[in-house]
Amino acid sequence: MKPTVLAFDVFGTVVDWHGSIAAEVTQLLPQADPIAFASAWRSGYKPAMARVRSGELGWTRIDDLHRMILDQVLTELKIDHLTEAQKKHLNLAWHRLKPWPDTVRGLTLLKQDFTIVTLSNGNLGLLANMAKNGGLPWDLILSAEVFRHYKPDPQTYLGVCQTFDLKPHEVMLVAAHKDDLEAAHACGLQTAFIERPNEFGPKVTRTDLGQESWTTYHAKDFIDLAAQLKAAS
Amino acid sequence: MKPTVLAFDVFGTVVDWHGSIAAEVTQLLPQADPIAFASAWRSGYKPAMARVRSGELGWTRIDDLHRMILDQVLTELKIDHLTEAQKKHLNLAWHRLKPWPDTVRGLTLLKQDFTIVTLSNGNLGLLANMAKNGGLPWDLILSAEVFRHYKPDPQTYLGVCQTFDLKPHEVMLVAAHKDDLEAAHACGLQTAFIERPNEFGPKVTRTDLGQESWTTYHAKDFIDLAAQLKAAS
Repeated sequence: MKPTVLAFDVFGTVVDWHGSIAAEVTQLLPQADPIAFASAWRSGYKPAMARVRSGELGWTRIDDLHRMILDQVLTELKIDHLTEAQKKHLNLAWHRLKPWPDTVRGLTLLKQDFTIVTLSNGNLGLLANMAKNGGLPWDLILSAEVFRHYKPDPQTYLGVCQTFDLKPHEVMLVAAHKDDLEAAHACGLQTAFIERPNEFGPKVTRTDLGQESWTTYHAKDFIDLAAQLKAAS
Repeated sequence: MKPTVLAFDVFGTVVDWHGSIAAEVTQLLPQADPIAFASAWRSGYKPAMARVRSGELGWTRIDDLHRMILDQVLTELKIDHLTEAQKKHLNLAWHRLKPWPDTVRGLTLLKQDFTIVTLSNGNLGLLANMAKNGGLPWDLILSAEVFRHYKPDPQTYLGVCQTFDLKPHEVMLVAAHKDDLEAAHACGLQTAFIERPNEFGPKVTRTDLGQESWTTYHAKDFIDLAAQLKAAS
């Protein structure tokens, strides 16, 4: 049975965080290695969320977690000449992440037959600004901020189902990350894996793009997913 | 100073709840008075929310409050032949409310210069389905459900500001109801009153459409509001 709602992971699945952050770092900090900078900033993300998930930190939005990590990265790289306004602007680079080339066309196709929503750990303001900047045609922006739980907590996946009064198998998570899809699968959702071979930048070759037996769909990109869903009976 | 974000009340301001509900009642229940039915259903709305706001009821979504009131109205009108599926479908009429004639064009104009969001007591699923049915081009759907407070609690108006990291005067509430605007004004938001003379159906003449000294804008409809905002320096 086809799902009713498609819920999309965002960072890496919908937008190219690595390329977008590296481009902004190149502009603002020509002396830094933009690829290493982007990777360092992102690698602080899961540990920071883990502190919220464990209860060590109270509820903290990604904007604020991004800023805490940015300050650490700048200290480690001994970059101390940025003004507060420059740091604030750089931190909002996550609101300006660029869609992958297939994203807008693919989402527009999928929106014809499904309700398309985000399910991201990014906060609502970040996701709304990103959608406005990038022309992302969401039917609804859902965020960890709504459920006060970060993925992969089950409250997030089941929260999408409850929002639309649907059973888990009527919702499909679309993501480029198998741990996210595994957690959704454990909650009974359908799953679509999207290959994003360049998610981690030009220097990293992803070795985890193989097809899994437990995913419902496996697609190169959103246009491929739309075609596979059209063809499914 | 012009606002950055426009937050819209929805029922009555963006969509014609009275006409839409009356039309569905006419179809399903030809023996009932559609105008009286729509008014009775809606008039249970504020008392039901008041029970949640006072803490007498735990958090309850509008979909569920609508259903509680519907069951009361059906009992009062001695209508007992509807199946559970028919009642469920009728209750979802609130997901299918039709936009006013100026709504989609007006929102599209306003979206060019502002971030446009909902601030409605309707739940997220209801608002998302309504937007998909009616082609409402929101940048973000915000709901009492996100803040776990119903309007006119200040947490809702200030919640919009916090979502976008804005000061209260950088956000403007757009609504056809002065009590809603008064509560937003008390929180420091800008306000725009929209005349919706037919909100309560053809039999009710609204006597509360006059211009107030404390509102920031007063407009006939969304197209008029867009023109006034364009003209403002």
